[in-house]
Amino acid sequence: MSIRLTEARAPLTHELEVLDEFGERRRIAIPAERSLTVFVDKRELVTLMTLGVAPELLVLGYLRNQRLVQRLDDIDSITVDWDVQTAAVKTHRGIADLAAKTAKRIVTTGCGQGTVFGDLMSEIDSIVLPEASDPAGRLSQATLYRLLNAMRVQESTYKSAGSVHGCALFRQDEMLCFIEDVGRHNAIDTIAGWMWLRGVGGRDKTFYTTGRLTSEMVIKSAQMEVPIIVSRSGSTQMGFELAQRLGMCLFGRASNRHFICYCGFERFDAEPEPARQSREGSGS
Amino acid sequence: MSIRLTEARAPLTHELEVLDEFGERRRIAIPAERSLTVFVDKRELVTLMTLGVAPELLVLGYLRNQRLVQRLDDIDSITVDWDVQTAAVKTHRGIADLAAKTAKRIVTTGCGQGTVFGDLMSEIDSIVLPEASDPAGRLSQATLYRLLNAMRVQESTYKSAGSVHGCALFRQDEMLCFIEDVGRHNAIDTIAGWMWLRGVGGRDKTFYTTGRLTSEMVIKSAQMEVPIIVSRSGSTQMGFELAQRLGMCLFGRASNRHFICYCGFERFDAEPEPARQSREGSGS
Repeated sequence: MSIRLTEARAPLTHELEVLDEFGERRRIAIPAERSLTVFVDKRELVTLMTLGVAPELLVLGYLRNQRLVQRLDDIDSITVDWDVQTAAVKTHRGIADLAAKTAKRIVTTGCGQGTVFGDLMSEIDSIVLPEASDPAGRLSQATLYRLLNAMRVQESTYKSAGSVHGCALFRQDEMLCFIEDVGRHNAIDTIAGWMWLRGVGGRDKTFYTTGRLTSEMVIKSAQMEVPIIVSRSGSTQMGFELAQRLGMCLFGRASNRHFICYCGFERFDAEPEPARQSREGSGS
Repeated sequence: MSIRLTEARAPLTHELEVLDEFGERRRIAIPAERSLTVFVDKRELVTLMTLGVAPELLVLGYLRNQRLVQRLDDIDSITVDWDVQTAAVKTHRGIADLAAKTAKRIVTTGCGQGTVFGDLMSEIDSIVLPEASDPAGRLSQATLYRLLNAMRVQESTYKSAGSVHGCALFRQDEMLCFIEDVGRHNAIDTIAGWMWLRGVGGRDKTFYTTGRLTSEMVIKSAQMEVPIIVSRSGSTQMGFELAQRLGMCLFGRASNRHFICYCGFERFDAEPEPARQSREGSGS
């Protein structure tokens, strides 16, 4: 039984004329932002604000990460129509207790999607990530640098129009999937949809995000069993504490050959940069 | 009839030991992120993830911006207790139709709070901002620069710990209120609460935010009748289109003496920088 998905596409950027500090008018591009109202078996569920890169995968990942659908083959089809800005999800047997499942609302910290229906916190303690001794759940400093370089050279809407977050899924330094969205939670949900559709597991993977490592980002990563997260930005206290509790490895402020590792040192094969060591050796 | 508010406080940063690219362990600070579950007349409404700067004003502004409470004196008290991470709102007469008002859910783009209960979009077309010819609803380039300088020198959790968004309310170049939060929507809601409590109107004010100018930020600003928004970041297409429709003035990429004005040029008294003009004069 396979799921039927449309491949709805829409422009990702919009050109407009702006005025700058020199009094000059010039044309720039900004990212699209559009609403997508999700209906499940004709019942309105939620409206997502999105860039619109892969809306079917976004909806799929949203249903997955909100734990509204348990099995992929419960879904018959997802039909996105940008003309009316809707995503129609058809299930084979309906979703039991949809109202109850969506009753609790947590308004979260982060950029983007920003809402996790309740009970996720109680769920995460049941998550068991791969052992730190398992090579698949580790990262070396050289691999981290190659991963960061892959992000640096990646073509993106961010480069052309700014104001979007990027997320990527890596197996060591191999980029498997790269998604941008106006909200980073949409980006991570879209990757979750991509993984679910292809049966790709998270236990030997690393997440990269341009967004901050807030509680919700860490929870979503853990839900997908991805033990390592790399961010260009920093961590909040709750993001850090959750990651620590789950035995995840968090890197922040990561770009070029710079980073800090917040926790999960035991998953990290450090190969320290020589520069400061030699300065230390000289007693400075 | 005056509203009673606690003044609950909690640490805004957390110190931890990290590992850097040189293999060195060092101590840094990261911002707190804590959950605050809001109860209205003992009924659970929502859980906000917040830094915790001014939780009572956050709750007040949230109730205001979600249009759950119409008048300040409908509220008897807001009692925040960090030990149990709750905010108890007591109203004088209850909130009519609370269930109906919170039934529609829009999961928005931006950093932060990220949820606007429905019907806001239908509301914004009724908003009438001050005329562009009204001096109170205008900004000059020199005033914009002074505003940006005030933000630059402002002490902040961002400077000590990163990973938070800042919002400020200005009357021309006078900073009236500065709030940081892990989510920029919480920051703007807290400012809304501050304004509401003090009876401060928005029509002669300017909003500054470090966050992006997404649809939700523009809507929230318009709800508070603030006609000008300045952001360190950029705009999305929907943020731009809404601002244009409402006759607002949007500045993005604003720091030091740089900015772009996306729309609302008629509210802006440009005093163009000479540098490029003289280069143009020389024909380059």
